Amino acid sequence: ILDRVRNKELRSKIVSAEEAAAYIKPGMNVATSGFTPSGYVKAVPTALAKRMEKEPFKINLWTGASTGAEEDGALAKVNGIAKRMPYQTNKELRNRVNSGDVDYIDMHLSESAQFARYGYMGGSVDVAIVEACAITEEGNIIPTTSMGNTASFVQQADVVIVEVNVTQPLELEGMHDVYVPLDPPHRLPIPIVKPNDRIGTPYIPCNPEKIKFIVPCDIKDHTRPLGEIDDNSKHMSHFITDLLNNEIKEGRMPANLLPLQSGVGNVANAVIHGFVESDLKDLSVYTEVIQDGMLDLIDAGKLSFASGTALSPSPEGLDRFYRNIKEYRKHLVLRPEEISNSPEVARRIGVIAMNTAIECDIYGNVNSTHIMGTKMMNGIGGSGDFARNAYLTIFCTGSTAKDGKISSIVPFCSHIDHTEHDVDVIVTEQGLADLRGLSPRKRAKQIIEHCAHPDFKPMLLDYFERADSATKHAQTPHLLNEALSWHQKFVETGSMK
Amino acid sequence: ILDRVRNKELRSKIVSAEEAAAYIKPGMNVATSGFTPSGYVKAVPTALAKRMEKEPFKINLWTGASTGAEEDGALAKVNGIAKRMPYQTNKELRNRVNSGDVDYIDMHLSESAQFARYGYMGGSVDVAIVEACAITEEGNIIPTTSMGNTASFVQQADVVIVEVNVTQPLELEGMHDVYVPLDPPHRLPIPIVKPNDRIGTPYIPCNPEKIKFIVPCDIKDHTRPLGEIDDNSKHMSHFITDLLNNEIKEGRMPANLLPLQSGVGNVANAVIHGFVESDLKDLSVYTEVIQDGMLDLIDAGKLSFASGTALSPSPEGLDRFYRNIKEYRKHLVLRPEEISNSPEVARRIGVIAMNTAIECDIYGNVNSTHIMGTKMMNGIGGSGDFARNAYLTIFCTGSTAKDGKISSIVPFCSHIDHTEHDVDVIVTEQGLADLRGLSPRKRAKQIIEHCAHPDFKPMLLDYFERADSATKHAQTPHLLNEALSWHQKFVETGSMK
Ligand SMILES: CC(C)(COP(=O)(O)OP(=O)(O)OC[C@H]1O[C@@H](n2cnc3c(N)ncnc32)[C@H](O)[C@@H]1OP(=O)(O)O)[C@@H](O)C(=O)NCCC(=O)NCCS
Ligand SMILES: CC(C)(COP(=O)(O)OP(=O)(O)OC[C@H]1O[C@@H](n2cnc3c(N)ncnc32)[C@H](O)[C@@H]1OP(=O)(O)O)[C@@H](O)C(=O)NCCC(=O)NCCS
Repeated sequence: ILDRVRNKELRSKIVSAEEAAAYIKPGMNVATSGFTPSGYVKAVPTALAKRMEKEPFKINLWTGASTGAEEDGALAKVNGIAKRMPYQTNKELRNRVNSGDVDYIDMHLSESAQFARYGYMGGSVDVAIVEACAITEEGNIIPTTSMGNTASFVQQADVVIVEVNVTQPLELEGMHDVYVPLDPPHRLPIPIVKPNDRIGTPYIPCNPEKIKFIVPCDIKDHTRPLGEIDDNSKHMSHFITDLLNNEIKEGRMPANLLPLQSGVGNVANAVIHGFVESDLKDLSVYTEVIQDGMLDLIDAGKLSFASGTALSPSPEGLDRFYRNIKEYRKHLVLRPEEISNSPEVARRIGVIAMNTAIECDIYGNVNSTHIMGTKMMNGIGGSGDFARNAYLTIFCTGSTAKDGKISSIVPFCSHIDHTEHDVDVIVTEQGLADLRGLSPRKRAKQIIEHCAHPDFKPMLLDYFERADSATKHAQTPHLLNEALSWHQKFVETGSMK
Repeated sequence: ILDRVRNKELRSKIVSAEEAAAYIKPGMNVATSGFTPSGYVKAVPTALAKRMEKEPFKINLWTGASTGAEEDGALAKVNGIAKRMPYQTNKELRNRVNSGDVDYIDMHLSESAQFARYGYMGGSVDVAIVEACAITEEGNIIPTTSMGNTASFVQQADVVIVEVNVTQPLELEGMHDVYVPLDPPHRLPIPIVKPNDRIGTPYIPCNPEKIKFIVPCDIKDHTRPLGEIDDNSKHMSHFITDLLNNEIKEGRMPANLLPLQSGVGNVANAVIHGFVESDLKDLSVYTEVIQDGMLDLIDAGKLSFASGTALSPSPEGLDRFYRNIKEYRKHLVLRPEEISNSPEVARRIGVIAMNTAIECDIYGNVNSTHIMGTKMMNGIGGSGDFARNAYLTIFCTGSTAKDGKISSIVPFCSHIDHTEHDVDVIVTEQGLADLRGLSPRKRAKQIIEHCAHPDFKPMLLDYFERADSATKHAQTPHLLNEALSWHQKFVETGSMK
């Protein structure tokens, strides 16, 4: 790795992962790179987990978002995490979160770096561990496949451990745009007015004296495979494309739309992929995560520019990206998540926000995080940053879950992450409900009619009508003793039917 | 009023309120000035309501926020409103909203003007009716005691009716800073970095040809009286002052704090007034509504500058303001609500957001709008704009309501306007719960211990403990068949006990 540590003096700090992991003390706030299973640290947490196996203790783990198995998975397996923020998707960690072993703070991603800086998370960063392509002569750090909160963590940390990952191509250099805002009362406008504006440096500024250890790593990003694009996703994708085409026709959007934001997962990917076959062109993206669909759009010549904080394609997508990196680079930039998810920028440029819900209620509230109101699935991630500030806010969900036993359209969400005030459009494979400018009672009719599954539609309509008459047509009719009974029934019987 | 209509040609358009009101057709989108009972229109809606009494029909009414009795009250009384956005506080209108007579669209105030411009509210502005101090030579409009959405409505309207209110002092001229952002993809950064930055014009630009009628008006703003500052409010005010002093001590805030935002009502006013007796100085305010407490702070030499969208003091406060307007003016500016409530600006300058809740649940979700989950009280107003983007987000509520029969701390909010992701601190007269950096289960302990009323504390603790054990310590423990049972009990028996 010597050629990647361009500052010669720093080469003396190259140590094994075990040696670096030995530095970490119980109770430390350990802040790492990583956003989705991209650009996360691999060697040091693997060594740390091994150490914890013999000598049990816990740390607080702060990251950009979710990470890979070598980080969240390994540390959760040995019960080595006390507090975790701001997002996770790992099965082992999820189990720890839902059994009281881990205190999980589920946050808007745009706020995670600043809340750490403000001192709200309990102390400062004791050690930052970050994956790098290379370290420059000046000691600055070239990130890899994600930006996340890395720059802010490095800035805040007294001690930095760098994992230089030799599997990450050096061509990533120049793809990042690093900008950490000042904190109030000194903060200035973020000067982005279009997705391809560059406002920072291509590296993470770092005083080389802060770098305590450099650890070589040759483990690849273990990104998540994408499923086949199924019929349900195709239906949702069509409903959304039709809606956007109509917005253009009605003069409510320009012919090349506005910058697209799309959540993670199969539906989001299907929607983006769906544009490949559309007549749209000169599209742009301002989002968190760059997935395969966006590479498809670049290949099809339809996407002029995509701004994100992480490259999170499938394993095949990542290979494709690496093979043609020089071409893709021209169309991509990776920014810190406080910029990729900035409410200021999202509202200014007017993103079209498309995210996935676990469930929606008949009045347009959305649950993104909790199964049956109690168990954490993943977290809110950036969905709130975008949903609140978008030009148009769309949530997708299958109309049912668990083989049709659960209706994803319910009388009352068992947890609410996005309120009725933040949701413009709901889409299921059944259809699309356009809620703009409607009062709750009018929204209920749209959602039940267009989005509910036929198996549940009569039950929902019956609930709404009885609630409407019992409350004498109040603003938001509910029968409080029935509102959560569908969930209760599922918990007791395994079905909402 | 001739001297107030400085453009001589426009003087020919002076007509009676009845004549102007006759222009309005059934189903029109009528957009007016007004934010709280300040700067709303009075003569034309009064005449319109009289006309509707004889000849029943409905209009859609868009405003800045709530208005006075001559507007919302009069039109609601004759059932003359079909759709209403974005906020209301009038009793007659509230009854119409909760009986299905009015479709009420309860929105984040920062979004109300742009959603109208985007075409999301159903058509454009058919006629704008706005209260003015004066009309300039160029035909531009000098607003009165509120800015609200007036500038954007005038820009969007084909036809403008101006009510020149001779009770509004001409010294108001120069107190406004009018800036209407461009819409995406053309929007630029809002260049405010501190509360006293001026970025626009002191008048509402208006092509004189758009002005169809000018109506003289001599009815004063009927602002709302403030109650005595009661003991509960004093307790909450002390808890908040202590918290903020501690933030300064811990180095998390500068010695003069950060710009204060405070909601409407007695508690909010008490908190602001509470600073008069503190050691704090050189304070600033970036808020919606300027209330008596802020005049007190100016008098005490402690408030250097306050930015808002409406002057909404009590009747005595308004008199006080008018009497000393030349002095107060130096410390005040009124901006359009898309600027006063801008998420971009609120996050950049880092406001301290203090708003009032109807109820909070044990995990930190907040209900600002619905009584027993069904009946609309007022609306979310700007609370979401600030709560989401503040440096520190505080919600206050009395621990009980209705003579102690209702606990305002509940297992599960009957409606959610601000999610667990948006709430840092909850304050009741019992104490303060600091939720920063805590997982939901830890938050529950803080909220129950510090905020609940002793009458309900054991019941809340019992709920939490049974839910925690039933869900095996899941992220957010709930017993779904009990979660809303407190509200149901109140509906059935008149008490939660
Ligand atoms: C909501 C979210 C979980 C959906 O994920 P997905 O992979 O697209 O959807 P799936 O249909 O595979 O559902 C995931 C799981 O939730 C379950 N589920 C879905 N809807 C459900 C419902 N209404 N009730 C109960 N469980 C449900 C599925 O059965 C599946 O469970 P399994 O893993 O045990 O099979 C995911 O998008 C998410 O975490 N979103 C929040 C964060 C976010 O929006 N990030 C993007 C911001 S930029
Ligand atoms: C929440 C809000 C209604 C509180 O208003 P307030 O005047 O400070 O509080 P009050 O204690 O007088 O309560 C108002 C009413 O709600 C009732 N109430 C309060 N808490 C209640 C509860 N938990 N359950 C049922 N009713 C409750 C009160 O009894 C009172 O009813 P009444 O008018 O029939 O007497 C008000 O602040 C509001 O509308 N907020 C939302 C908008 C906002 O935050 N704007 C500022 C943004 S900048």
